[in-house]
Amino acid sequence: MKDFFKVTDLEKVLEYTSMFPVVGTELVFLEKTPGRILAEEIIADIDLPGFSRSTMDGYAVRASSTFGASEENPAYLNLVGSIAMGESPSFSVDQGEAARISTGGMLPNGTDSVVMIEHTEILDEKTIEAYKSTAPGQNVIEKGEDFTEGNIVLHPGQKIRPQETGLLAAFGKEKTRVFKKPVIGIISTGDEVVPVSETPHPGQIRDINTFSLSSQIIGAGGIPLTFGIVKDDYKNLLEKCREALLASDMVLISGGSSVGNRDFTIEVLSALPDSEIIVHGISISPGKPTILSRSGNKPVWGLPGHVVSAMIVFTAVVIPFIEKISGFLPEQKNRFTLSACLTRNVSSAQGRTEYIRVRLTEKDGILWAEPILGKSGLINTMIKADGLIEIGKNVEGIEKGTQVRVFPM
Amino acid sequence: MKDFFKVTDLEKVLEYTSMFPVVGTELVFLEKTPGRILAEEIIADIDLPGFSRSTMDGYAVRASSTFGASEENPAYLNLVGSIAMGESPSFSVDQGEAARISTGGMLPNGTDSVVMIEHTEILDEKTIEAYKSTAPGQNVIEKGEDFTEGNIVLHPGQKIRPQETGLLAAFGKEKTRVFKKPVIGIISTGDEVVPVSETPHPGQIRDINTFSLSSQIIGAGGIPLTFGIVKDDYKNLLEKCREALLASDMVLISGGSSVGNRDFTIEVLSALPDSEIIVHGISISPGKPTILSRSGNKPVWGLPGHVVSAMIVFTAVVIPFIEKISGFLPEQKNRFTLSACLTRNVSSAQGRTEYIRVRLTEKDGILWAEPILGKSGLINTMIKADGLIEIGKNVEGIEKGTQVRVFPM
Repeated sequence: MKDFFKVTDLEKVLEYTSMFPVVGTELVFLEKTPGRILAEEIIADIDLPGFSRSTMDGYAVRASSTFGASEENPAYLNLVGSIAMGESPSFSVDQGEAARISTGGMLPNGTDSVVMIEHTEILDEKTIEAYKSTAPGQNVIEKGEDFTEGNIVLHPGQKIRPQETGLLAAFGKEKTRVFKKPVIGIISTGDEVVPVSETPHPGQIRDINTFSLSSQIIGAGGIPLTFGIVKDDYKNLLEKCREALLASDMVLISGGSSVGNRDFTIEVLSALPDSEIIVHGISISPGKPTILSRSGNKPVWGLPGHVVSAMIVFTAVVIPFIEKISGFLPEQKNRFTLSACLTRNVSSAQGRTEYIRVRLTEKDGILWAEPILGKSGLINTMIKADGLIEIGKNVEGIEKGTQVRVFPM
Repeated sequence: MKDFFKVTDLEKVLEYTSMFPVVGTELVFLEKTPGRILAEEIIADIDLPGFSRSTMDGYAVRASSTFGASEENPAYLNLVGSIAMGESPSFSVDQGEAARISTGGMLPNGTDSVVMIEHTEILDEKTIEAYKSTAPGQNVIEKGEDFTEGNIVLHPGQKIRPQETGLLAAFGKEKTRVFKKPVIGIISTGDEVVPVSETPHPGQIRDINTFSLSSQIIGAGGIPLTFGIVKDDYKNLLEKCREALLASDMVLISGGSSVGNRDFTIEVLSALPDSEIIVHGISISPGKPTILSRSGNKPVWGLPGHVVSAMIVFTAVVIPFIEKISGFLPEQKNRFTLSACLTRNVSSAQGRTEYIRVRLTEKDGILWAEPILGKSGLINTMIKADGLIEIGKNVEGIEKGTQVRVFPM
């Protein structure tokens, strides 16, 4: 019997992300920016807005013209014009005067605020009454108040959300430099694995991992590239790995997690060009037999063959590596985990980080995390699950009622 | 001056989702299922697994052969074979016998459990010692234990996550019926709006909404279809709306939220074929001037022109309509909102639902929601924000320290 491998702590494994470089960058059109990782610093090249704008429908005035105005004692203002949307007013407004303005309209020279239409009454063609005073700047967004020319507004490593895409539009960025989406190759191994199109005979199972991992890769911002099923054959697997490495920024080999097959995967990983086995076993459950190696500057993973273990390892371990090579900077990330109240005691073995599937339910405004019972190898536990909770390696268990973090799955 | 419109409560507006039918369905290949909404019931057409499988590397045995085994008093077992992965064992195992098995291997006839390899020692070619007893079913997933043939496993209206795609693979579903992604047309209006490629003159702004709304539509599972900018011209807008309605399942018109333009949008919406104005103003802030109309069986929205208001209305009001026509069933949804502790008192006007942008920060394991100060019309508040909190219409405000729900933005 082979020696059992020496496992590495999860924290140590995650430090190895620093070994792998960020993939390249590319220029994409504005409509292709959603969800991408920004690769350039965006500096305001104009003031935003480019002129003082009204935020209300009403009358542009000099605030001092309305000081002291009330229902009983309205300010009488001479109407000197109306501001057309999208145009720079050709006139200016003096003390005691007003100009009709719509939301988004440009304030004429001489004005500093807008009286809301609701606080006015038209007396005649030339005169309005204002029932309320305005303060300078009221109902106005000043030129450059949103973003001032020359300031840094977005940083490399940021994920581009709808508001960032909107901001790129505001600055006229028809093309933006983003990090390329890493291409992640998937190889499914195992003599028992048959394609989805085949009816498995007794002893055989369909290739699930190619599809569950592809879906997880899409969710993590990568591009999955599938290489089908390789039987447990050194030469074939080595050849397929070489092919996958040429076309991908990272390779996942699923299967080969039994002791025998694991040695076999290790042999293949060691035979890849400029390669090094970095991690051979991680102190997590499920997922202990996971292998991380390096070939050139690309990570190559040996993931457990069982779909549940593979999915959990992907979530807990592989995603941080994908984020690293995607140029995503944790300090720029707007991602927060759900928190929920544990419905029952959960015990855990010390010395390893354990992942428990939980179902979430809401009761009286409190979110509860209910551990899912049943053998960990059952896919139905993942179907029932809304997320995972993590039990740290120095903890024996978590008591009912404790607030726990939930990683959505 | 025109009468102010009669606003509708948010709850009432959301009830109108029932007016609009679900878009059609389509068959997609397995690799295209991630993130889609399932449109068929999935019934297990085989047992999963199709045979009793080992979950460990070890020896398949009849549990009774190991009863009472311990370090001091091991059970001696005759090795009668080795199970090849992917094959149905051609032999059976009797009392006092064992067969070598790997993780995922098929249990031979006569066995009901697996002794882990760690609890055994090889004595000679034909004999092993087992140091631990097993119970029937131990280290085994029984035939049909995960899913039993004939049972319903997935429901229409469910969002397909990686585990559901994996399950479809397990059942050999090369093609799956899903709901079509709704096509959402976007028309930007306003005499002040210029294309992103142009440099705005004083009084003009670039078209932001087309891009921020497109990005939000993608996030909500729709397909954005953009129709560019239409100047405030009745005939042009009517024509563009007709064109958009023909090509889309829903149309968003952004802009025209000032009183004058709003009337103008209302006129156009009323002139569309088989049309009806359903909502003319919603008691939310920001977003009060929002219009919802129906043309045929399609919703047409008049959204505020300001990017911040438009984004918030999209999140709070439009998304539930997109989900409805996408076939997404709330009772099948695995979506839970973040909860955080408010850092300061927030006041609100009664009678309307108010949305406050917040920044999230974590301190001592507690998530804090910090209201973002600054005029609501500033885009930079959305860039700083991680989400929105909702203040109910019957609430005057929320006190510092209160646990609030956060809708990520």
